Amino acid sequence: MKNGNADVGLIGLAVMGQNMALNIADHGYTIAVYNRNYERTREFMAHCERAEPSRGRILPSAELAEFVQAIARPRRIILLVKAGAGTDAVIGQLLPLLDRGDLIVDGGNAHWLDTIRRERELDAAGFRFIGSGVSGGEIGARFGPSLMPGGSAESWRLLEPVWQAIAAKVDPATGRPLEGAAPGRPVTGGEPCTALIGPNGAGHYVKMVHNGIEYIDMQLISESYWLLKHLGGLEAGAIASVFRDWNEGELSSYLIEITSDILQQKDPSGDGFLVDKVLDAAGQKGTGQWTAASALEQGVPANAIAEAVFARALSAMKEERVAASAILQGPEVQREANATHLVDAVRNALYCAKICAYAQGFQLMASAQKTYGWQLDFATIARIWRGGCIIRARFLQKITDAYTRDAALSNLMLDPYFRDALHRGQDHWREIVMLAVRNGLPVPALSSALAYFDGYRSARLPANLLQAQRDYFGAHTYERTDRPRGRFFHLDWPAPDRPETETGT
Amino acid sequence: MKNGNADVGLIGLAVMGQNMALNIADHGYTIAVYNRNYERTREFMAHCERAEPSRGRILPSAELAEFVQAIARPRRIILLVKAGAGTDAVIGQLLPLLDRGDLIVDGGNAHWLDTIRRERELDAAGFRFIGSGVSGGEIGARFGPSLMPGGSAESWRLLEPVWQAIAAKVDPATGRPLEGAAPGRPVTGGEPCTALIGPNGAGHYVKMVHNGIEYIDMQLISESYWLLKHLGGLEAGAIASVFRDWNEGELSSYLIEITSDILQQKDPSGDGFLVDKVLDAAGQKGTGQWTAASALEQGVPANAIAEAVFARALSAMKEERVAASAILQGPEVQREANATHLVDAVRNALYCAKICAYAQGFQLMASAQKTYGWQLDFATIARIWRGGCIIRARFLQKITDAYTRDAALSNLMLDPYFRDALHRGQDHWREIVMLAVRNGLPVPALSSALAYFDGYRSARLPANLLQAQRDYFGAHTYERTDRPRGRFFHLDWPAPDRPETETGT
Repeated sequence: MKNGNADVGLIGLAVMGQNMALNIADHGYTIAVYNRNYERTREFMAHCERAEPSRGRILPSAELAEFVQAIARPRRIILLVKAGAGTDAVIGQLLPLLDRGDLIVDGGNAHWLDTIRRERELDAAGFRFIGSGVSGGEIGARFGPSLMPGGSAESWRLLEPVWQAIAAKVDPATGRPLEGAAPGRPVTGGEPCTALIGPNGAGHYVKMVHNGIEYIDMQLISESYWLLKHLGGLEAGAIASVFRDWNEGELSSYLIEITSDILQQKDPSGDGFLVDKVLDAAGQKGTGQWTAASALEQGVPANAIAEAVFARALSAMKEERVAASAILQGPEVQREANATHLVDAVRNALYCAKICAYAQGFQLMASAQKTYGWQLDFATIARIWRGGCIIRARFLQKITDAYTRDAALSNLMLDPYFRDALHRGQDHWREIVMLAVRNGLPVPALSSALAYFDGYRSARLPANLLQAQRDYFGAHTYERTDRPRGRFFHLDWPAPDRPETETGT
Repeated sequence: MKNGNADVGLIGLAVMGQNMALNIADHGYTIAVYNRNYERTREFMAHCERAEPSRGRILPSAELAEFVQAIARPRRIILLVKAGAGTDAVIGQLLPLLDRGDLIVDGGNAHWLDTIRRERELDAAGFRFIGSGVSGGEIGARFGPSLMPGGSAESWRLLEPVWQAIAAKVDPATGRPLEGAAPGRPVTGGEPCTALIGPNGAGHYVKMVHNGIEYIDMQLISESYWLLKHLGGLEAGAIASVFRDWNEGELSSYLIEITSDILQQKDPSGDGFLVDKVLDAAGQKGTGQWTAASALEQGVPANAIAEAVFARALSAMKEERVAASAILQGPEVQREANATHLVDAVRNALYCAKICAYAQGFQLMASAQKTYGWQLDFATIARIWRGGCIIRARFLQKITDAYTRDAALSNLMLDPYFRDALHRGQDHWREIVMLAVRNGLPVPALSSALAYFDGYRSARLPANLLQAQRDYFGAHTYERTDRPRGRFFHLDWPAPDRPETETGT
């Protein structure tokens, strides 16, 4: 292999890495690839030989030094390795082999604080670093992911052509993904689903929020399915049709579409529908939990996102739930007589709750950008989520529209389009939550989103009592509605006759 | 001052430190005190001179070395300084002045991971360390807090007599706090509200969970107050009477009692009730957030505790809510005709939700003990919360009883007493949540606790769909209800005719 022949390098040939390498090669780039275990590289090359038209542009190396030498300078090296200590280890091995000005791109699911640290350390050592969210799973990596890079403008100039080439593409006229890519035949034209998100950890942060939104999106769909099944008495195949209908309207999205596919899937290993045989114990890999923890830390009320994470945790306690179900009783489930009305009401509930969930995600990013010194462009973020990623949806065009109308929009729910949707749908939403509560069916996501909506539109909340309690037992002071903000008062409780004192704090 | 005269030392004379020093002196101990700023020490001694019968047992030092020399060996030095870097700084200054075997007790609100680290470092250097939760606010510190120490058995032997002396006392016959302490006249007899919680960070962890429970307890009370106000049309004074009644029954607790005091408090600076003038923007200091974040990390479904933290965050966005209230509409609130029924139903809702909230807190501790290698005694933890701390309540005796009946109880809700209470109260609870939802009044804590109850008692949840989605877009695999746990399957979705494959993972 001739030195400096490759346009790009990629380390880590698990499925995501293999697919991204193929995607890059399909777009005309020559790409050097390296994997710690060379056996996997060999298997990958054998597969390429059999099935990949762009195989000639993929250059394998057994040695890291050879791999590095194969790449033209300034080098662009993409890491798709296990996030955490694994990333640091690979960077540590790479650095002695690189030249100043070379660029490392971490495409793993890194924690944004790790990305901030890595960017700072590499910048100080004279190297470039980008932490990029990569969404869309294996298929996305192969034929067009949504890419959320964070780093300096100079680093981005090096990466941009590659990232724009391989990203998912959206039809600018409709805002919908362009499909039909195949090995060796990538989609051409359209708006690429990538843009520089911001400096250092901004890309990985935004990717994390994407995943948090994905959790709540999936949980809302699951609760909707459950209500149709138990209150509507519909079997999986019938619910599949409902979701197929919904996918034609404002709910149109990848997750709704695959839900319809899933629900109509017959069990390949038995009778009936497969979904009825799938065990109800959900796994999770951390980014949902990070999102909720970041919301807690930022003081952003992303309660529905957190509920989705907790719902997975509760589902995972399968044996405990089975045991509890024999001890703790609830109401008998009463079928709804009017299934058509139920379907319509659930659809509205799902859509309203989805608006709130996205509002929470965007509020979280708005808060994080202040904490970390970023300037995020929310219209662009929604724009690059329209294709490639798991939460891609027609809905995201509406979010782009909202932030294009008003870049400083303080909450998505206040945008006229979403406000009207909430006003239209909320009666059904309330009806569905009440039905679930009456029938003992848990809908933590639908109901927490409703509590968020009702709380956010409440000029007054009962936190006045809470602040009085805090002053009573901890002298934490309180403000008054009839005094300017920033003036704090304390009472020596219980104090029927003692004066209120104003404190300096 | 003669060297070695003091039984104990205490560093940090903010209100908590002053009050704990007085509490210790009242129990016959001679105590050396030190504060970074000596002016505060001087003020404290002047106060003692005027008002404290035990003043002769308090020995002030202007210099840290003098303070250390004043304490008999092995020394027992209590820190009540600002948690975080401040604690490490003070420890760093102390160490060169100490002898091997001396004991440092951190009584601040430290993060349990810091406590684990400090205990390890000090142990390696030959010193003893205890991280102790201290609950009960200023009054508790003065006349009897609830104390949650974590450390080795040897360290605890040094601290135990002091901690038992100054802790709140509970009447063993009734389980209720003994009251009536006054300066120089501590309560004698009764069961002390302290016990060794476990090694290293166990005490601070349990104190943190106590605070998380405090958050949800306060939020549930606030939501109940709000419903009585808006659905019942009751003014604060009338709601005070309701809470006074409730304080005679199973809800009897410090927080219910002070709520009644607060609601009947007239505005000392104007007309009407003070609570109506208190601004509804809640503050928070971090332990609630830590609790919810730890639950996320442990995968424990403590959703109601998290909702209480998020409710404070939402309340703090006061100006944003006021602006949103003019844009986002909801239903008109309809008064309930039967206020007596409403009061009764809210009481049951509050009690049921409280059971779930505590169940979540205890489940979190049960999970954490596995992660951190502790063996927690839940009957004892509930026992030492019966007095001194903010969440002290008759209820805690019931929890002690439950864990005494069955130390391995997997969830509080399954104990016969709590199970029966949930069965009795759940119709009212559902009615109240439905009323709130219909009227657009946010009850995130009451409704999330209900979703937890309904979820926990569900043998099946819709996570089957969620796992199928995860397998569809990420090949995350699923288990099957008709196969043993631990066998994982994958489908190459959408796959009308393709076979299911079993994977090794």
